[in-house]
Amino acid sequence: MSETSETGETGDVLAVKAQFPGLSGNWHYLDTAATAQKPQAVIDATVDALGRDYATVHRGVYARSADMTLAFEAARRKVAAFLGGQEDEVVFTRGATEAINLVAQTWGVENLKAGDRILLSTLEHHSNIVPWQILRERTGVEIDVCPLTADGRIDLEAAERILTPAHKLMAFAHVSNVLGSVLHVEHAARLAHAVGAKLLIDGCQAAPRIALDMKAMQADFYVFSAHKLYGPTGIGALWARKEILDSMPPWQGGGAMIDRVAFEKTTYAPAPQRFEAGTPMIVEAVGLAAAIDWLQAYGLDRAEAHERNLAGKLREELGKRNDVTLFGPADSVGIVSFAMDGVHPHDLGTILDEEDVAIRAGHHCAQPLMEHLGVPATARASFGLYSDDSDIEALMKGIERTRRIFG
Amino acid sequence: MSETSETGETGDVLAVKAQFPGLSGNWHYLDTAATAQKPQAVIDATVDALGRDYATVHRGVYARSADMTLAFEAARRKVAAFLGGQEDEVVFTRGATEAINLVAQTWGVENLKAGDRILLSTLEHHSNIVPWQILRERTGVEIDVCPLTADGRIDLEAAERILTPAHKLMAFAHVSNVLGSVLHVEHAARLAHAVGAKLLIDGCQAAPRIALDMKAMQADFYVFSAHKLYGPTGIGALWARKEILDSMPPWQGGGAMIDRVAFEKTTYAPAPQRFEAGTPMIVEAVGLAAAIDWLQAYGLDRAEAHERNLAGKLREELGKRNDVTLFGPADSVGIVSFAMDGVHPHDLGTILDEEDVAIRAGHHCAQPLMEHLGVPATARASFGLYSDDSDIEALMKGIERTRRIFG
Repeated sequence: MSETSETGETGDVLAVKAQFPGLSGNWHYLDTAATAQKPQAVIDATVDALGRDYATVHRGVYARSADMTLAFEAARRKVAAFLGGQEDEVVFTRGATEAINLVAQTWGVENLKAGDRILLSTLEHHSNIVPWQILRERTGVEIDVCPLTADGRIDLEAAERILTPAHKLMAFAHVSNVLGSVLHVEHAARLAHAVGAKLLIDGCQAAPRIALDMKAMQADFYVFSAHKLYGPTGIGALWARKEILDSMPPWQGGGAMIDRVAFEKTTYAPAPQRFEAGTPMIVEAVGLAAAIDWLQAYGLDRAEAHERNLAGKLREELGKRNDVTLFGPADSVGIVSFAMDGVHPHDLGTILDEEDVAIRAGHHCAQPLMEHLGVPATARASFGLYSDDSDIEALMKGIERTRRIFG
Repeated sequence: MSETSETGETGDVLAVKAQFPGLSGNWHYLDTAATAQKPQAVIDATVDALGRDYATVHRGVYARSADMTLAFEAARRKVAAFLGGQEDEVVFTRGATEAINLVAQTWGVENLKAGDRILLSTLEHHSNIVPWQILRERTGVEIDVCPLTADGRIDLEAAERILTPAHKLMAFAHVSNVLGSVLHVEHAARLAHAVGAKLLIDGCQAAPRIALDMKAMQADFYVFSAHKLYGPTGIGALWARKEILDSMPPWQGGGAMIDRVAFEKTTYAPAPQRFEAGTPMIVEAVGLAAAIDWLQAYGLDRAEAHERNLAGKLREELGKRNDVTLFGPADSVGIVSFAMDGVHPHDLGTILDEEDVAIRAGHHCAQPLMEHLGVPATARASFGLYSDDSDIEALMKGIERTRRIFG
């Protein structure tokens, strides 16, 4: 089981990979940062929830609906435990994007006004930029951008210099979806809190790779998407510190989020129900719980070691070539972006596809970072817990073939 | 296949019921208005999309992602055809609730101002009340309430008297989720358009039961939830007339809804992409397409006849009892609400559960309607295409037992 034992590791990974029906055949899937494949356990949980166990939640007086309600709320507790938070701090959303929009359009609208400032960073995903720009249009809040270190981390020393008491929010990615660089969340939280700002963390790429503990990390908001965590599409979560969540006004109106509805005046349910209007993602919540079970059985510390190991190996292989530029820090986790001299990333991606190697080529929803790197796009290989050395070998072989084609 | 042939109909329904793994055993599921059970075809489509075919959409340069993108966009075309609209008029949402909130917070915020008026009706679901109240708080728009006829339909003659040029929107349920009463959408559209108002239709209970054609119905917005249409949880759709959708500003920011992102200024994608921030409900869209295929193979005209037939039969049986009050019109479709003298609906629901009969007891997310009916709650039986006479018999038997218990 040791990460240092090559043989043991390969055997382990093959056993892991066999649990993923999306990875049958000889496919080298290196786009897990876009979305992760699903283990059979998640598919089985989905099948049962859609079939044998299917019912609505929170409303039925019959046994199956009561059972499904228990399963749904157990999923919420599981998410809370996964994050090291409390169940009444967890709101189910469509995904991380909706979670950030929820914070912007409730906490943001309620607490930020013209003259207040938000600090983002150069490497943020569009989902952690555009919601704040929409809030800027609505409230007149200003946005500052924290630069990166030379090797592609959010520069917390720069953040410390930029932050002022006018800053009410700092919103950073925990792990960059392009560079794989890891933020020291606790350090960022100290800086934000020192000026009275809240800290929102986009945990999309961290949640599947790094053990999380909100108590230690001291973030105020943390968001992730289930589909990047080996779970279903259509669901994700917002975690927010209880006193903050309790203070936030409703965003979407509808069933389940109300206390009492009358045309003159409606009163709302307490958090987190206040933020879950309408029939929720019932089946998806059950699937997410199964994904968390699966990931925790694998082990988060083991996941991080695996993802660091593969990223390091790929960086080492790519570093041997004199026609490849590597982006991001040496100790990145799970994600490696690079450029090949004279080859557009899309062409590389297309040729690799012919070799059954799936990478991502593009701006990765991070156009400001592309601008900073001075490229229109990068090639990106990203790993999952089913990835292994054979994926790296196939990628390097495909790169070599691409070089022969492009000369 | 004729609805009038008892034997043929029963045989048909048994063949239909056998396709629903959620309905195995002797369970009498009469809560389809809350959520429909799923046919095996939907579950199979979900399993393939989560496993063998799983990939992200719109971004991958590799074949499987391109294939999934085709499937996702084919699902959008299928929804458009199902509604009689165009594919660029369909936005995927979490469900009908989110779709109405989207309209309120984009079209509503952009077009409505203090002094403008919205006309709702007494029988609306909370999802078609609370979003407009949140908009009222934000913009100062006024809300009027259209009364019902004595038998529980939205009174369109009253609507005609209430409507003024100050009314910019009329938002009604196509089929009441409590009473089963059916709105004449084309008539409502003529009234709304005569004063220059738009018409939004909550189609949650109509879409699974009545053939739809936006061209004939002339609504401006139409929303529904997949989980009530024999499809997955976590997805639904907003249809909006193209010129309206094109004019609406974005709501949620993130990936996929942008044209170009820079910290100074971001530009947005055209509709419908502009309204689909983040990784969409990929697997759910594939499941929804399978649900529509299944429902269309069954036949919408046949569905309506089936739902009218069962509602009529149940009303007839309940009407024979002198201890039952029936709500809603005689020609309601698929949904029957009633009260039993001296028995709280929750107690009835609990006793029926012991007999394997699942009904809904409560306010059905329609508290203003309960107030109008003068009851805190109703008992509601609602049918699906798998329902048959045996369900009615089991319900009536359970009601008889309840009477014996309560004396």
